[in-house]
Amino acid sequence: MKFDLIIIGNELLNSKIQDLNTHFLAKELFVAGHELRKTTIIRDDEQMFYDAISESHDKTDVIVTSGGLGPTRDDLTKTMLAKYFHKKVIYSKKSEEVVEKHFSRSTRVYDKEKIDYHNIPEDFLPIYNPTGFAPGLKLQTNKLRVYALPGVPHEFQAMIKEFIIPDVKTESSKITKHVVFKTWKIPEAKIFSELDTNLWDLLENEGEVSSLPHVMGVDIGIRIEGNSLKEIESKEKKLLTIMSNSKLNAYIWFIGDSTLEERIIAEAKEKKLKIGFSESCTGGLCASRITNFSGSSSVFWGSIVSYSNEIKESSLNVKTETLNSFGAVSKETAFEMALGAKENLNVDIAVSTTGIAGPGGGSDSKPVGTVGIGVSSKEKTESQIYHFSGNRKNLKDKFSQIALMTMLEAIRRF
Amino acid sequence: MKFDLIIIGNELLNSKIQDLNTHFLAKELFVAGHELRKTTIIRDDEQMFYDAISESHDKTDVIVTSGGLGPTRDDLTKTMLAKYFHKKVIYSKKSEEVVEKHFSRSTRVYDKEKIDYHNIPEDFLPIYNPTGFAPGLKLQTNKLRVYALPGVPHEFQAMIKEFIIPDVKTESSKITKHVVFKTWKIPEAKIFSELDTNLWDLLENEGEVSSLPHVMGVDIGIRIEGNSLKEIESKEKKLLTIMSNSKLNAYIWFIGDSTLEERIIAEAKEKKLKIGFSESCTGGLCASRITNFSGSSSVFWGSIVSYSNEIKESSLNVKTETLNSFGAVSKETAFEMALGAKENLNVDIAVSTTGIAGPGGGSDSKPVGTVGIGVSSKEKTESQIYHFSGNRKNLKDKFSQIALMTMLEAIRRF
Repeated sequence: MKFDLIIIGNELLNSKIQDLNTHFLAKELFVAGHELRKTTIIRDDEQMFYDAISESHDKTDVIVTSGGLGPTRDDLTKTMLAKYFHKKVIYSKKSEEVVEKHFSRSTRVYDKEKIDYHNIPEDFLPIYNPTGFAPGLKLQTNKLRVYALPGVPHEFQAMIKEFIIPDVKTESSKITKHVVFKTWKIPEAKIFSELDTNLWDLLENEGEVSSLPHVMGVDIGIRIEGNSLKEIESKEKKLLTIMSNSKLNAYIWFIGDSTLEERIIAEAKEKKLKIGFSESCTGGLCASRITNFSGSSSVFWGSIVSYSNEIKESSLNVKTETLNSFGAVSKETAFEMALGAKENLNVDIAVSTTGIAGPGGGSDSKPVGTVGIGVSSKEKTESQIYHFSGNRKNLKDKFSQIALMTMLEAIRRF
Repeated sequence: MKFDLIIIGNELLNSKIQDLNTHFLAKELFVAGHELRKTTIIRDDEQMFYDAISESHDKTDVIVTSGGLGPTRDDLTKTMLAKYFHKKVIYSKKSEEVVEKHFSRSTRVYDKEKIDYHNIPEDFLPIYNPTGFAPGLKLQTNKLRVYALPGVPHEFQAMIKEFIIPDVKTESSKITKHVVFKTWKIPEAKIFSELDTNLWDLLENEGEVSSLPHVMGVDIGIRIEGNSLKEIESKEKKLLTIMSNSKLNAYIWFIGDSTLEERIIAEAKEKKLKIGFSESCTGGLCASRITNFSGSSSVFWGSIVSYSNEIKESSLNVKTETLNSFGAVSKETAFEMALGAKENLNVDIAVSTTGIAGPGGGSDSKPVGTVGIGVSSKEKTESQIYHFSGNRKNLKDKFSQIALMTMLEAIRRF
């Protein structure tokens, strides 16, 4: 099915916030076999809303709107949808029930005098909001379906995943599957134009290929379609054979749609390992990434975020001498930080990070982007210097990525 | 001036890449006193391109297109612009000169047989590309101006900054300013409909009002316009008076466009304080948020991420007895974690977090969303239990937000 996304909100066009919903919806639709035809980002303006819906009305199957469903006066979506489709806004028992569910999860009280989430345009249905208070809205007309969702990314995204994708799924008879090969340590530009120039065509015989670069890695996804599970299985098998015969095979670290964090948790759990970090330049990001996933508490013990040298010495037993001779950003300090974390956190594997995220603090011999990564396990302790480029935020991401990659490799060696 | 942005490229609607140009252009225009009216993201499709330009033609002053200027077959922008404006594509000496400049910066050779950057629609002017090979295009008609730019973010952004903003600067005489009141501890739904029902109208007399909810806080922004700095200053003064007389005043924690992290760093620095955290449920997120900002190293000493009870005992001196009697998620444990962090990290203020981010681990007396927050400084140590709702990711965000709010309040008390 074809989808048009209409995003409503001055804050996106004032640069206050960045649109994250297009990218998310594009991915979910792509994986589910649908097409995002167009995104329009408009201001909180009645005429623009009207124009945007009119423009999409006859050209698409589904219109998704994002934003403008809150309780304040610049939230126009509900009244505009009612106007556009010539519906009255009326009391809806269903909507009231949904809203009561939302509020029952919190200590906040639903005050019907002040919030009118229970009034929705007639013929619209309310959509449960798993992470917020405003319900979504759904309308099915002859040829067009409309979903109106809140713009807050976590609410929008939860509703797309939990309601919209399943809601449109039943209408397709084809079975689809998204097979993902997760690679690392090779840049996207090289994979198909240098390493293996036939690979894209070979994969494309089986399905629609996409190449999605991440921080220091590329996911090669192939969306296969079939009329039966058997057909899907046979196509998947072919893909596995093509990949295992390709030069890219050496760079694949996982087959399937899993994150690095999830693999670390699953594989450490399988081997009954306790893991931890000592973090300087990543400032807690490694630990935070791991603890974003439930189940992490069974393997992740802790992290010493030692931003100052004092903490490196007092909590990680890094020697004053090492800091003085080699500096905080050095192979030697990374080594002692990893060892200290393994001992003080009493874990099986500890990974350390110490680097320069910038914009200040760089020098000729240690420019911004330099990072020392250490890893300590019963087997041995070792450390290495890497160089990356980017702004502070990019560099923190890359530093934490190389640390987590180092952790997964250490778990696999265990 | 009003700008419409049309972004061309399947890769944005397939989730291959994320649109970074809207956010960039929005910010540059906002700062320069212009308005981004709308963004449309479309596929590499002639009809969609034609529709998007028609839709904007009479409603805006400037159309900027992004993408579709490269040398491959799916690059339609040049021919489509020629068609739309009824221009022939002809040889342009000016364009050839610009392109030669681009290639002279590199070892790549400009092959006129294969690349036709020297042919552009008549009446268009080439725009120098500081970081790429394809020139941009500019057309001035009676009422509309068109800039066609490459979509690659660094090329698009360099051309916006170095050419388009200066090119339109001379034409605007209005000065604008965005005044932001940052509030917390009051939900968006209450502010204008309950707390102060006249406030929105009062603010709107002075400029365009927006209300942007964040995690546990709302930014009220007013964009004011004037013909002189004096007029801007007088409007800003009026806004400050309106706000200081409003009931919302008690909930304003900062006036200006600054983040909580930036305030913590700036105000701790001003008072020469060292700060730190002990984090269980936030798993390093508090530390990571602070270290996202450069300058944090002057005030942020470190964080003990104590995900397991063992680490709470060994690294934070939490008593076994406390954990056994009250549990890890308790006022008592939060108290000892904050005190332990203050002592072990040797900082002036330490804030602790211990809670249940879910989805598992909750109970009737301590449901998912329960968090204990402790704060310890020379003055005293105290702790409190809060309850929030949301999924794991939301809850981590909210837990870290209340921890950072607690930190800022402690810094202000110091």
